[in-house]
Formats: sequence, structure tokens, C-alpha cells
Amino acid sequence: MLSKNQIKTITGLQQKKYRKQYKLFFAEGIKVVEELLSSSFTLSHLYTEPGYFTGIPHNKYTEVNEAELKKITALTTPQHCLALFEIPDEVAVSQSGLVVALDDVRDPGNLGTIIRLCDWFGIENLVCSDECVDVYNPKVVQATMGSISRVNVVYTNLEAFLAQTSLPVYGTFMDGANIYKETLKPEGIIVLGNEANGISVGVEVLCNERIAIPRFGNTQQTESLNVATAGAIILSEFCRKL
Amino acid sequence: MLSKNQIKTITGLQQKKYRKQYKLFFAEGIKVVEELLSSSFTLSHLYTEPGYFTGIPHNKYTEVNEAELKKITALTTPQHCLALFEIPDEVAVSQSGLVVALDDVRDPGNLGTIIRLCDWFGIENLVCSDECVDVYNPKVVQATMGSISRVNVVYTNLEAFLAQTSLPVYGTFMDGANIYKETLKPEGIIVLGNEANGISVGVEVLCNERIAIPRFGNTQQTESLNVATAGAIILSEFCRKL
Repeated sequence: MLSKNQIKTITGLQQKKYRKQYKLFFAEGIKVVEELLSSSFTLSHLYTEPGYFTGIPHNKYTEVNEAELKKITALTTPQHCLALFEIPDEVAVSQSGLVVALDDVRDPGNLGTIIRLCDWFGIENLVCSDECVDVYNPKVVQATMGSISRVNVVYTNLEAFLAQTSLPVYGTFMDGANIYKETLKPEGIIVLGNEANGISVGVEVLCNERIAIPRFGNTQQTESLNVATAGAIILSEFCRKL
Repeated sequence: MLSKNQIKTITGLQQKKYRKQYKLFFAEGIKVVEELLSSSFTLSHLYTEPGYFTGIPHNKYTEVNEAELKKITALTTPQHCLALFEIPDEVAVSQSGLVVALDDVRDPGNLGTIIRLCDWFGIENLVCSDECVDVYNPKVVQATMGSISRVNVVYTNLEAFLAQTSLPVYGTFMDGANIYKETLKPEGIIVLGNEANGISVGVEVLCNERIAIPRFGNTQQTESLNVATAGAIILSEFCRKL
């Protein structure tokens, strides 16, 4: 049985201010929850339909039915379980290898997809400007498919961060150099911009390498690629040259 | 003023069966509607707030207010206009150059993103298995950002289509050859699979070139890339070698 207070606390975690206050976030679905349970995240509490999990300490485990899950889920259809995890303290970004930096990426699906991409390409550090969507937003957590446990995500003033780095800073711009023909360094910060406005002026002046993904269509109308799609192509290109 | 019948017809177009019956689909938002107006699509009717469009024939133009738009929109927040367009007859797929084929891709956002990618990379033909989400689904139309007017999308029995082609058929599989090291042909069909299950067995046996995107992460846990993300990397790799 879920108490009214429990329901209120859990649904409150859909909002950033309560996630900050309680230092908790939640994930849903067997696959994602299993991945997070086997990661370095600390379980706070698991609410699940019977039969899916074993070995969870008694004081962190509550069996619920579908009707109860419906009261706490952030999904249209609950996915058998919902787990609360502690939000870990931020770890400083290592200034070596490839780092991805996001300038004001707002869409939860895009952030989730980019985290999954970083994980695939072995990129351990993702720096987000303070304006980016929160990584512990339930839609981001779902979109990462568990990759959230393997990428270090840090929020910061991006301009200040880029101003102090000694790594080359790569930004994507329409007038940039053809990424397929450029020599790409094995160390650097790859900046991806906002969905509607791209990289902001304040960040642009801090990019010392301007790159572009060439357009192959014979029309000039194709406006741009989605930020996650562009990110996939750029990371692939950096990593294939390693 | 919108009549009850108009509202019923337009909202009905959110369902495939009514789109088929009326041979109409709709798009929303100034940018997407403008792109479709300047394309080969034939406008059936434009419903818009005042001041956004000029030169639309009187009999195809209705001014509405936000409250009326709310009654017909498929979006959470209406975007100033909604336009009905005629669904064109399907054009046969040209069996030359690069063709993308989708095996049971269900998510509207993924199909929309893949259409935008085809447009970017100059791929004119996209073959969808009959199980794929409908290209005129409002969520797909929005996600294409206008690219829907520049890519020929055809629905067919994918196994029958692949069985008769003389082009090489590329499929992505875990045990495939490293795509970065493969010689990729400038002509061929690139098959992308279902979000959860990948390429189906019936289609797999028709793939005569097995490729893979190598994993760079030092963990074996990263399960897979999203189909649109994988598509971005594969198309980039084919086109950079052209």
C-alpha cells in the first residue's frame, strides 16, 4: 500500500526543485531499473509489481499493483516498477580525451539520446550549461536507457568552463570546415548547441575549431539536422579517426 | 468560424483510416506549413491566425483564433496555423543510388528524424514495410520539419521488395563488418530495423552485406543505439565515401 504522503513525494520528484530538495530521482521500467541497480547509483526505494526483482533489502522494497503504479508513474502506461535513487554528488570533469559540452539543450529526449551516444563512443564526461534540461528529469532518465549510470554529467557556467580549458574547443557552424576532411584531434571539447538557435554568441567566441557536416542533398532547403543526430555524426567522425 | 463538421473532419485526420478515406493530411506551425506550401504538395485548406500568410486562394483560406485552433490541433499548444494537404499518389522507387528501407519502425519521431536525415544526405527514396508508422501521422509530419516534401516515401511488403532488387542490401547486425573499414558501394539499400527487435528474420536473410557500428565504450553494457541515431552514423559513413 502506498500512503498519500509517499504518492505526493514521488510525483513531486517530477519537478526539479523537489529532486534538489530530496536529492532523489526516479526511473521506470524493468530494463532501466535493472541497469541502475547494477550501477554505482544507490537505491533509495523500489516500488514494483510482484515477481520482477529479488535480493532487494526489505526496507527498500514495496510491492504495488498496477493501480498504485498509475498514481506515481510519469509515463502514460506504467512499466511494472518505479525506483527511487539518490542523486550523487557531482564529480569534476576530467580535462583529457574527448568531452561533450551542451549549450542550452532543452529537449529531454535529445539529452537522453546524447548521453546514450556518449556511452556508446566511450565518452565519459558531458558538460551541460546551466540552462540545459535537468539530467534527472524522468524523460531524460528514460531516454538514456541506463546509460545515465556510465556518463559523468556536470552542470556549470559553460562560458566560464570553456574560458579556462586548455583543450581545443570544437563547435559546429554552417561556415565550418568539412568534418570529413579535417584532422580531428583525439582530445578536445565538442560543443553542441540549442535546438532552435544553435551555439550562443558567448560560447561561439570560445570555439577555436569551426567544423561543419556537409549537406549532400541538392536542395538548399533542408534547414538543419536535429542536435542529437548531428551529435551522432560528429562523435562517429571523431572516434573513427582515433 | 469553424463548423462542428469541419472540426470533426480535421481531428479525424489524426487517424490513419480517415486520412486514407479523405486522402488528406495536416501540418502545423508557420515554418513547416510554409515549407509544404512551397513544395509539390497541393493545399486543400489553410486555417490560420491573421497576419501570417498572403496569396492563398480565398476558397482555401479561413482565419481562426487561438481558441478555434485548440479544437483542431494535434499539439499541446497550437502553433498559429494548421493546413490540410492532399496525400499524393505513391511514386515507384527508383532502383539506383542509395535507398533507405525501414523494417517495422514504429515511433513517429524516429520516422520523422530519418526522413530529415535522408533529405540532408540527398537520399530520395525511403521504402517502409507495411508495419511502419504512417508517414502522414501528424507527429511524423511535425518531426520531418518540412523534409517530407523532398523524400519519396513508399509503403510495401519489404521482403518482396528486397527479394526482387538487384542492388546490394546492407543490414546492421552485432556481428557485421566494421562500417568504418568496409568499402561501401555508392548504390545499395540500407535497411534499418525495429526499435525493440532490430531487423526481422525474414528481412535478415535478404541482407547480403552485414555491417556494424563499432562500440568504443569500455563496457559491454551499452545495449544499442537508437535507430535514428544509428541511421545518422550509417548514412554519414556511406556519403562521406561517395
